[in-house]
Amino acid sequence: MELFYAKEAHGSVVTLDQEESGHCIKVLRHRVGDEVCVIDGMGTMLRCRLTDANAKGAQLEVLERTEGFGVPGYHLTLACCPTKNNDRFEWMVEKATEMGVDRIVPLIGERSERKVYKSDRARRIALSAAKQSLKALIPEVEEPVSVTEFLRRPLQGIGLIAYCFEGSRVSITEALDGIDPNTPITVLIGPEGDFSPEEAAMALERGYRPIHLGPSRLRTETAALAAVSAVYLNFIGKKAYVSED
Amino acid sequence: MELFYAKEAHGSVVTLDQEESGHCIKVLRHRVGDEVCVIDGMGTMLRCRLTDANAKGAQLEVLERTEGFGVPGYHLTLACCPTKNNDRFEWMVEKATEMGVDRIVPLIGERSERKVYKSDRARRIALSAAKQSLKALIPEVEEPVSVTEFLRRPLQGIGLIAYCFEGSRVSITEALDGIDPNTPITVLIGPEGDFSPEEAAMALERGYRPIHLGPSRLRTETAALAAVSAVYLNFIGKKAYVSED
Repeated sequence: MELFYAKEAHGSVVTLDQEESGHCIKVLRHRVGDEVCVIDGMGTMLRCRLTDANAKGAQLEVLERTEGFGVPGYHLTLACCPTKNNDRFEWMVEKATEMGVDRIVPLIGERSERKVYKSDRARRIALSAAKQSLKALIPEVEEPVSVTEFLRRPLQGIGLIAYCFEGSRVSITEALDGIDPNTPITVLIGPEGDFSPEEAAMALERGYRPIHLGPSRLRTETAALAAVSAVYLNFIGKKAYVSED
Repeated sequence: MELFYAKEAHGSVVTLDQEESGHCIKVLRHRVGDEVCVIDGMGTMLRCRLTDANAKGAQLEVLERTEGFGVPGYHLTLACCPTKNNDRFEWMVEKATEMGVDRIVPLIGERSERKVYKSDRARRIALSAAKQSLKALIPEVEEPVSVTEFLRRPLQGIGLIAYCFEGSRVSITEALDGIDPNTPITVLIGPEGDFSPEEAAMALERGYRPIHLGPSRLRTETAALAAVSAVYLNFIGKKAYVSED
């Protein structure tokens, strides 16, 4: 199963952009009459039929819409400081998208070695990972913001900050235990040099709960993925599947 | 904190090999009398004093031994088919080492696209990740074996296989619930094209339990890391930490 992406997919006809059209027509050699599936990036998957095999703007007729296709059963915002090495942050974006995340916010902390981040790179990776893992919802990758700027936003739902605090911290699994899947979750992951004490104090003041990610010393991108895994696995819970494949 | 690795670290004197010596003496410019920490790769960390700053074979006097330094609180063997793209498998080895795994077995499945794998590459990554994440235990990376050959070994503890079985599968979190940390856990992750029905049937016959890793379609390396995360997070459980940093 191959998914294409179209930004505007409200009506009964969908046009693919140049890149997606080229992939559909030139690479995969789809012809008029073929059925192809399109995602709108907002959670809807459209089963379509190709009506114009234009390699610069393929036209499709919508046959069926499926809402919430591959959409995670929780609401997660991951606010994470990009690593010095871009590749490390970007594989994390790919893996987080595969598991399921709604929004990724690149944070610039006082101690961040990387003070500039181009979100477009991560957006391309999130799009590609969403298509590959059969999800109609592409995580929104925001423009980078400073930690303090991010913390000025009102916190909705529960906020968790992974930081080596003085004092007590609960495990992320404990912090997630029993929460309702409709409650928005925001997880903050600091840079290689951690959050500054001022940033951490502000997070607590703004209602974030200090958490730990277990006894291992994890790199920034591994910590971020451990947090996403913890949320993903928390909502899998004890559900059993019966597959008829 | 910087860790060095020495294979033979039983006595009161430790000699670093050429690579580790060069890093210690030439790169980090340690001098006689400096305290440095050495891991034996088997779980012991040795606090040492440099007695001979030989860049080809540095000599150290052992001051103190700490057993079980950074050793995971569980016993996990990850048997996973290497991905077509080596980098993907190798970042998984790095991340799994950071979280904690005892043994990694590269499996060659009937449907594996990659039929040959050089374990030495993964060993170097596991060594480096163990040092970086402050662990004295370096995961053993075995030579590749076929799935059927691996399954002929007697299963110790519990075995889990992630596969799109016909029939029912429990979630990995359910499968891990309540198990004793001393019970060895083996998790099998198949190649891009999944295990063959024959391999899957043999696994069940040999006592492996079919599991799922949630609703998302994960790449091989992401599935492997989700499984390691599930084990790691399972044994973090609800423990709270009080840090005095």
